[in-house]
Amino acid sequence: MPEYRKPNFDKFDEAIAQMMIDANNRGMKGLTTFLGVRLDEFGPGRLVARMDVRDEHVTPMGTLHGGVMAGFVDHVMGCVLYPLMAKGQWAATTEFKLNYLAPVKEGVLTAESTVLSMGRRSAVVRVEVEGGGKLLCVAQGTLLISEPPGARA
Amino acid sequence: MPEYRKPNFDKFDEAIAQMMIDANNRGMKGLTTFLGVRLDEFGPGRLVARMDVRDEHVTPMGTLHGGVMAGFVDHVMGCVLYPLMAKGQWAATTEFKLNYLAPVKEGVLTAESTVLSMGRRSAVVRVEVEGGGKLLCVAQGTLLISEPPGARA
Amino acid sequence: MPEYRKPNFDKFDEAIAQMMIDANNRGMKGLTTFLGVRLDEFGPGRLVARMDVRDEHVTPMGTLHGGVMAGFVDHVMGCVLYPLMAKGQWAATTEFKLNYLAPVKEGVLTAESTVLSMGRRSAVVRVEVEGGGKLLCVAQGTLLISEPPGARA
Amino acid sequence: MPEYRKPNFDKFDEAIAQMMIDANNRGMKGLTTFLGVRLDEFGPGRLVARMDVRDEHVTPMGTLHGGVMAGFVDHVMGCVLYPLMAKGQWAATTEFKLNYLAPVKEGVLTAESTVLSMGRRSAVVRVEVEGGGKLLCVAQGTLLISEPPGARA
Repeated sequence: MPEYRKPNFDKFDEAIAQMMIDANNRGMKGLTTFLGVRLDEFGPGRLVARMDVRDEHVTPMGTLHGGVMAGFVDHVMGCVLYPLMAKGQWAATTEFKLNYLAPVKEGVLTAESTVLSMGRRSAVVRVEVEGGGKLLCVAQGTLLISEPPGARA
Repeated sequence: MPEYRKPNFDKFDEAIAQMMIDANNRGMKGLTTFLGVRLDEFGPGRLVARMDVRDEHVTPMGTLHGGVMAGFVDHVMGCVLYPLMAKGQWAATTEFKLNYLAPVKEGVLTAESTVLSMGRRSAVVRVEVEGGGKLLCVAQGTLLISEPPGARA
Repeated sequence: MPEYRKPNFDKFDEAIAQMMIDANNRGMKGLTTFLGVRLDEFGPGRLVARMDVRDEHVTPMGTLHGGVMAGFVDHVMGCVLYPLMAKGQWAATTEFKLNYLAPVKEGVLTAESTVLSMGRRSAVVRVEVEGGGKLLCVAQGTLLISEPPGARA
Repeated sequence: MPEYRKPNFDKFDEAIAQMMIDANNRGMKGLTTFLGVRLDEFGPGRLVARMDVRDEHVTPMGTLHGGVMAGFVDHVMGCVLYPLMAKGQWAATTEFKLNYLAPVKEGVLTAESTVLSMGRRSAVVRVEVEGGGKLLCVAQGTLLISEPPGARA
C-alpha cells in the first residue's frame, strides 16, 4: 500500500504489543493453543503471526481444515488492534470474508494482519496468509472496539 | 425459502448421511474434536449440527472466540454436501463470509446448513447459527466439489 | 426463518414506508433511475423491490452485468431500514458480500430484503434476488445508522 | 505484495489490453456509460481504472451511492483478467465482498484491480479504490473463466 494511503497510527503502544506477545507465549488457553499461534512482530497497524500445520489441523483428505485457517485469520485480525487502542479497550470481529487460494498440506503458515482504516469504534483489517512461498488465504473484515466493562462510552 | 426456489436434490443419499453421522460420532480427530461438533440431522440440501460452548472456546473477555464460530461454520458448510455428491467426491470451502450478530457466553450452538445452489463442480451454501433462541451468526460461501484422487474429471 | 429467531420490529412506521414508495415512484435521480427500481412492499424488517432487466443492464455477452445486480442489492439493503428508524436517521451500507447463483438474461428481478438483526447504530440485512422462478443472487451486509446532520449522537 | 508471492502472468497479452481500452473509450453502453469508467493502465495481473463522481452518482444525503461503488468494483474486478486469458474466453464475477471505508462526496475515484491467484477456470482478484488521497473501498472476489460459446471445455 502506498504510504499516503495508510491510516495514521500515532498511538501505537510498544508496551501493549510486548504484553500481547508475552501473554501469548505463556500460552493462552483454548483456540490459540489448539492452533499453536505465535505472535511474532507488531508494528503500527501491522502484525505478523505464525503457526505450524500439525496433524490435528488436517482433514481425512490430508489438507488443512478450512476452519483452522478461518480460526487463525479471525484471531490475528483482532490482535493487530490492541497496541492501537486505549488500555482496557478490546476488539471483536463483527464480520469477515476469506478466500482460500491454495490447498495446504504442511509447513508454517505466516499471517500478516494490516489495518486498512480505523476509527474510534471500528476498524477494517486485511489478513494475508502465506506458506511455502505462496499466498494461501486472503481475508478482510470489520472489528468493533469496545470500552472496558464499567466504562462510560 | 419458498419451495419453488429450492434447488433439486434428487440425489440425496441417506446411507452417506448416516455414514457421516457415524464417523463423526466415533470421533474425528482434530478441529471437530476441539469444537465438539455433533452432526444431528441430514436432509436433502440441509444439515443441522450442534456443539456445546466449553471453557476452551471462550476468550479472556468471557465470550465465544470468533474463530471457534468460524471453524464451526466452515465445517458444517462442507458436510451438508456429502449426501448429495457421488461416492468418493469431496467438497472444500473455497470462500465464505460471516457476520457475528450477538456475543455468546455459554450454551448450545445449533447450526443449520442449507444448500442454495449446486452444480457439478460447485455449490453455494448458507449457514445460520443460533443459541438461546437468538440468531448468532449468518454465513454464506462457495464449496468446490472434487473428484476422488485418481479419477478422471 | 422461524418466528422466534426474528428481531423485534415494534417501531415499524407505515407512514415512512409509504413516503419511501412515493418518493421512489416520483423518480429518484441517479442509480435508482438507471436501474429502474420499484419499491413494492414494506413490512416490519422486510422489503420487496423489483426491477426489469433492460438492454442497458446487460453486457456484450448478453447477460446481466454483475455490477447492476450489485447496485440493486446495495440499494434494497439500505431501504428496508427506513421504516424502522427514527425520523431523520439514515442508513448506509458499510460492507456486504454477494454470490451470483445463475446468469440472468431478461425478465423481472425480485429482491427480498430481510433484517436479520438491528441495534441502535447498526443492522445486518440479507438480500435474496430471484427471477424466472430461480434464486439468482444472495447477499448479506452491515448497515450503519446515522443521526440526522446537526443532531447530537 | 512481495514479488515472490505473486502469481505468474506469462500470458499477459498487450494487444488484448489495448483492445479493452479502445472498446471502453469508444463508449460501451449501459453500466460503464452510467458510471463513466475509464480503463487507464493494464499490466500483468493489474488494472488501473478511474471514474468521476457525478451528480447522478450521489444519494439525496449528498454522498456517493454505495451501489455505484459496487458497480465500479464489479466491473474492474473482471476486466483485469482479459489480457491474461485466451482469445474468446470471458470472465464473470461469481462472488465478491467489499468494505466501504469512508464516505465520498466528489472527485475522481481510482480503482486498482490486482489478480491474487489464477487457475484455468477461476481467479481471485482484489480491488482497492481511492480518492482524495484516501483508501475508500476494498474488495475481494472470485471470477469464473468461461470458454467461448461453441467451444468444447
